[in-house]
Amino acid sequence: MDRDILLGIAFLCGTWPALGLAAEDPPLSPASRDCLECHEEATPGVVADWRRSRHARTTVQAALAKPPASRRVSVGEAPEGTASFAVGCAECHTRDPDRHPDTVDHGDHRMHPVVTPADCAACHPVEADQFRQNRMAHAHGNLVRNPLFRDLMDQAVGIRSRDGRSLKVSDPGDATRADACLACHGTEVRVVGTVTRDTAQAGEMTFPVLSHWPNQGVGRVNPDGTLGTCSACHVRHEFSIAVARKAETCGTCHKGPDVPAYPVWSVSKHGVTVKSREASYDFDAVPWVPGRDFTAPTCAACHASELADASGRVMVPRTHRFADRLAWRLFGLPYAHRPPQGPDTTGLRSADGLPLPTALDGTPSPGLIDPAEGEARERRLATVCGACHGTSWVTGHFQKLHHVIEETNRQTRTATGMVQEAWARGCARGPGQGSPFDEVIERRWVESWLFYGNATRFAAAMSGADYGVFAEGRWWLTKTLQAMSEWLATCRARPSR
Amino acid sequence: MDRDILLGIAFLCGTWPALGLAAEDPPLSPASRDCLECHEEATPGVVADWRRSRHARTTVQAALAKPPASRRVSVGEAPEGTASFAVGCAECHTRDPDRHPDTVDHGDHRMHPVVTPADCAACHPVEADQFRQNRMAHAHGNLVRNPLFRDLMDQAVGIRSRDGRSLKVSDPGDATRADACLACHGTEVRVVGTVTRDTAQAGEMTFPVLSHWPNQGVGRVNPDGTLGTCSACHVRHEFSIAVARKAETCGTCHKGPDVPAYPVWSVSKHGVTVKSREASYDFDAVPWVPGRDFTAPTCAACHASELADASGRVMVPRTHRFADRLAWRLFGLPYAHRPPQGPDTTGLRSADGLPLPTALDGTPSPGLIDPAEGEARERRLATVCGACHGTSWVTGHFQKLHHVIEETNRQTRTATGMVQEAWARGCARGPGQGSPFDEVIERRWVESWLFYGNATRFAAAMSGADYGVFAEGRWWLTKTLQAMSEWLATCRARPSR
Amino acid sequence: MDRDILLGIAFLCGTWPALGLAAEDPPLSPASRDCLECHEEATPGVVADWRRSRHARTTVQAALAKPPASRRVSVGEAPEGTASFAVGCAECHTRDPDRHPDTVDHGDHRMHPVVTPADCAACHPVEADQFRQNRMAHAHGNLVRNPLFRDLMDQAVGIRSRDGRSLKVSDPGDATRADACLACHGTEVRVVGTVTRDTAQAGEMTFPVLSHWPNQGVGRVNPDGTLGTCSACHVRHEFSIAVARKAETCGTCHKGPDVPAYPVWSVSKHGVTVKSREASYDFDAVPWVPGRDFTAPTCAACHASELADASGRVMVPRTHRFADRLAWRLFGLPYAHRPPQGPDTTGLRSADGLPLPTALDGTPSPGLIDPAEGEARERRLATVCGACHGTSWVTGHFQKLHHVIEETNRQTRTATGMVQEAWARGCARGPGQGSPFDEVIERRWVESWLFYGNATRFAAAMSGADYGVFAEGRWWLTKTLQAMSEWLATCRARPSR
Repeated sequence: MDRDILLGIAFLCGTWPALGLAAEDPPLSPASRDCLECHEEATPGVVADWRRSRHARTTVQAALAKPPASRRVSVGEAPEGTASFAVGCAECHTRDPDRHPDTVDHGDHRMHPVVTPADCAACHPVEADQFRQNRMAHAHGNLVRNPLFRDLMDQAVGIRSRDGRSLKVSDPGDATRADACLACHGTEVRVVGTVTRDTAQAGEMTFPVLSHWPNQGVGRVNPDGTLGTCSACHVRHEFSIAVARKAETCGTCHKGPDVPAYPVWSVSKHGVTVKSREASYDFDAVPWVPGRDFTAPTCAACHASELADASGRVMVPRTHRFADRLAWRLFGLPYAHRPPQGPDTTGLRSADGLPLPTALDGTPSPGLIDPAEGEARERRLATVCGACHGTSWVTGHFQKLHHVIEETNRQTRTATGMVQEAWARGCARGPGQGSPFDEVIERRWVESWLFYGNATRFAAAMSGADYGVFAEGRWWLTKTLQAMSEWLATCRARPSR
Repeated sequence: MDRDILLGIAFLCGTWPALGLAAEDPPLSPASRDCLECHEEATPGVVADWRRSRHARTTVQAALAKPPASRRVSVGEAPEGTASFAVGCAECHTRDPDRHPDTVDHGDHRMHPVVTPADCAACHPVEADQFRQNRMAHAHGNLVRNPLFRDLMDQAVGIRSRDGRSLKVSDPGDATRADACLACHGTEVRVVGTVTRDTAQAGEMTFPVLSHWPNQGVGRVNPDGTLGTCSACHVRHEFSIAVARKAETCGTCHKGPDVPAYPVWSVSKHGVTVKSREASYDFDAVPWVPGRDFTAPTCAACHASELADASGRVMVPRTHRFADRLAWRLFGLPYAHRPPQGPDTTGLRSADGLPLPTALDGTPSPGLIDPAEGEARERRLATVCGACHGTSWVTGHFQKLHHVIEETNRQTRTATGMVQEAWARGCARGPGQGSPFDEVIERRWVESWLFYGNATRFAAAMSGADYGVFAEGRWWLTKTLQAMSEWLATCRARPSR
Repeated sequence: MDRDILLGIAFLCGTWPALGLAAEDPPLSPASRDCLECHEEATPGVVADWRRSRHARTTVQAALAKPPASRRVSVGEAPEGTASFAVGCAECHTRDPDRHPDTVDHGDHRMHPVVTPADCAACHPVEADQFRQNRMAHAHGNLVRNPLFRDLMDQAVGIRSRDGRSLKVSDPGDATRADACLACHGTEVRVVGTVTRDTAQAGEMTFPVLSHWPNQGVGRVNPDGTLGTCSACHVRHEFSIAVARKAETCGTCHKGPDVPAYPVWSVSKHGVTVKSREASYDFDAVPWVPGRDFTAPTCAACHASELADASGRVMVPRTHRFADRLAWRLFGLPYAHRPPQGPDTTGLRSADGLPLPTALDGTPSPGLIDPAEGEARERRLATVCGACHGTSWVTGHFQKLHHVIEETNRQTRTATGMVQEAWARGCARGPGQGSPFDEVIERRWVESWLFYGNATRFAAAMSGADYGVFAEGRWWLTKTLQAMSEWLATCRARPSR
């Protein structure tokens, strides 16, 4: 066979890489070529991972030349000097060196190890801007700077030691917080010094010493002051849209009993269909076409991705502000509630003066979206459902969800009433007297809403069947309420203090 | 290259769809063409999903022309007027309109939204008939019309509110039941009215209003009176045999601690082998050949599928009556027992007068299969094992399972003796005096057999290793018995009522 | 098209098997041909599974001809008489018949059903030798011959029955042990007799009767006295390196709350990346190249596999002694500790005279590796990390892990102090007086280190995020300590015995 036929065949078969007949990869910038000179050997996995990425196989120019519907960059024109090069190491790690406190001299370049959303914004400004308005970007501060939530964290992970006849709770320390809650919520990464190391490739080199590093939390506070890290979902260094669209990616943080989105989805018809059929799906297509590219949605399909029908008509636009299609925040604090208006929730104050989106009696705090906005968001989500489900189906589904929100909130009221009675009777020390999260009755109260109320609602939202009953739902919720009631009976029987 | 060569190559490579060189898809019936005219736009995901299905790519005639061993329809000849068409929307959604109470006028057609096993039976009568005799088809009635089981459901999911110093259990309401137990067991779907909506494609249209809709429970009661829905496993609208053969599909309902078949399988050698190798399996082949099409079984391989060896010799025939290969019902109620003879279990009465397959002392109720039938079923299952395991292996496996059934039943006897003593002493109210499922000691009793006895047996049946010990098995079973024993000691210490 | 072009195309497309154009499979030995004559029919799944294996598709000679870096056999030359044949049934099942007590006459051959590491060593001697020095190979004896661990097993799985007003714990029996702990730790398989069966293919045949069979535990004691079974990970009869490299395989045994390596990995960035991208990975390549063959590691990549960079430079050599890259044994007994020096841990004695790697106050027992060796092992593991992570990242990661080891060990000290006070006060019977694992306070103590301490450490080791907090970590650890403290208060309030 002559070479043309062979090439034609190989291309058809997708086997050309196996022939060593490399496609024309775009050129690298001189700076990125410098990086590879050492890093092919220094961090071969990073380089090989990046070689698989779209960044390595295209130029910004080529990306901009695509029709708008399938364009993956949102900038108007290529950042200066980058248009005709692949997006290599230097394009991200040497961008704007002066605004990165972690910048160091590194060979002939000024390099910063911590790439931040500000760097990604060079080509993806719309996404970076939306993400800044996304509650997840504020996950660090929303936890750490809310005195109640911070107390819950410190009670959950504080070190217990014996102190005479009782247990003492000591500060867990920053390393424990970073390993625990802040693994997802994000640490605060600061430059705390420099260190000089001997490297095999370039002799002595100086590197920044970073606090609470490594961390891939979605709400990480970066040395340059930006919030979050795109690689929390677009995992380094392939930065793949396919990875971000897989439910597993969301599952890193949304898997525990407090926020069991991934396990619930896994047992839902959506999850089992994806798990059964994903080998035939196209997770990389832009736009993403329900029924053609996938037959059941992952998290991204419902909450983030731009979806279009086969003719190219856009059904919902892409968003990196994930509450855009959410009418409710199922995550009870302690009650499920309308989403807060802004991404920073530290300013919320409930009617009873707590930094919570709902008062202890369930009254929503000021600063949440209003019902009209909630309904608009639900209609937006219903548009996604409508790709595969008729109106009766979708309406019935949301009616059931609303019922379950109300049902579980009622039982949070029951649980809260019991812990309040315990506080009033002096059997436990409530807000103002001590931590509301450190005593037996209080921890059961937390479990009732944080684990079992949440799990029941997530199950209702995604039709997670048994997740709402025996696996992590109502069986445990009602059992917990019963245990609280028994505990309260012994409290009442005690002589008053 | 000339076009023939190109086509030949493209066909070999499986790349012809990418060339836009569509294979000859079979013609659609005029009615189905009408459907697509609007629904390509109205529900694009459904249409695209269906286009991936075998239904869209073949005709009943072609399906009937296959040799018996690889035939996927069980009807003798094509239903009238369908032989030469693809199986499109209308073939199912307009079949026998008069027997479907949810039929409405819809454009020029009379359409029913709820397709039922009676519709599928047009081409798959043997499967529909077997499924009718399958206990799963009766899952709704077997739960809801058994007063004891219904009480267990209502205690598990009933709404708790405070009533003076105690907790009141209120009726959970139909929406909660539908979201909880009936998500799997199936709701009762009835036509409760009609609604008129303005549609983008066809202006005002009238639709039936359905109770407890949507629902995909395997025991759903349909408007036409049939039981179950084929799409519980052959997920809409691809209706794929591959999806039904994946363990994830069964896992939708068989995943919680009461019936942990999926998680147990997942940690078994069978499960891990499938998870490791499934990319190389053929989940679509009929018949299905162990070793060639798959190297470790999913649920379907052992309990449902027709299996043959590579020469075509059938080892076990297909069944949609899933107890056909089951000698035992591991699911204890409260004891593991021989499967009931018929699929409707509401008529069972134990020696102590309860609507249970076993009395509280473990005596099997009348109406279960006899040991000879049990042994015949075990031999049938052993035939499947025999494809990959020698006789010593298989014999040893079942001996161990029998031992574990006996071991766990003995401990259910222990637990039941304790709750009975609590009832006798008046520390709890048992059958006849109140719900046997609402008090602390009673819920522990339920957990001992419903969660930990079951999990231990499922682990033994599938060699699920740690699932029978620390994950969900004996550690928790013996811990629960110990907690019951301690509770009983405090009961005994109380002055008698 | 002429046949050559067709073949060329088919080869390129990987479709040649579909054409029935079989590659030249190597010849079978006459003995293996004899086996297939009956077993194609007797155990078709086994035969078909083996046909997919590398064993069926290559000869020892061809395997030896590969360059060292990609060679999959470690023997110097082919075992006598096998060089030019595929590795078929007889090559393993009739090897060294006299050293296998389970050998029986089987047709014209002397066959043993239980293939052991001694058989595999014929071609893989280095791996067999390393595995013999691997702690896992000793998993049976390390559990069963350590009186404390054996007591923990028997308390966990012993049968509870009622004995007057208390619960009696009976010996669980060998079948229960085999189904429970020994499913992973391995049973002792002995020949206990013979049985004659009528076979469809060869009439009456005699087979050995084996005790505690089947079993696939990694520490199985074989009839020939060898330890372990290679097929625990290289699952029969495909014996695939790809399967052994999948995390699911390790997950069979490393999944429960005591040793949640698999679930923690699953929620880690490594796990979610693998789950998202594995369809594009090459799990079969030798050597294995990070970034090219996979972009995130499974268990094998970090703990066992030979890794090289794309130029072929070996980063770490293969090992079947899995502690080679482990500086710590995170699995607390009860404290996390340096790994024992040898694989047989039954000889360890703590300062307080217990057969444990650490005393009850946390002091390490003699016989553990020293810190220098620990640091060397950590550097070896860090080399693997270094493929994809810079030095700051890796250093920061291990610092956090060291902190969490210390943090959790401190809390094990707290828990142990409480159970010791209970023993001292006579509220429970400790070592010397009774089982230290059978009473309520003792089981909570066990859960504090065996479940929650372990899970927290595993989560820190693999960045398993929420696994170290709500899912199975600190929330439950601190809750358990609190429950122990409350229990102890009631103990103190009792009149002294």
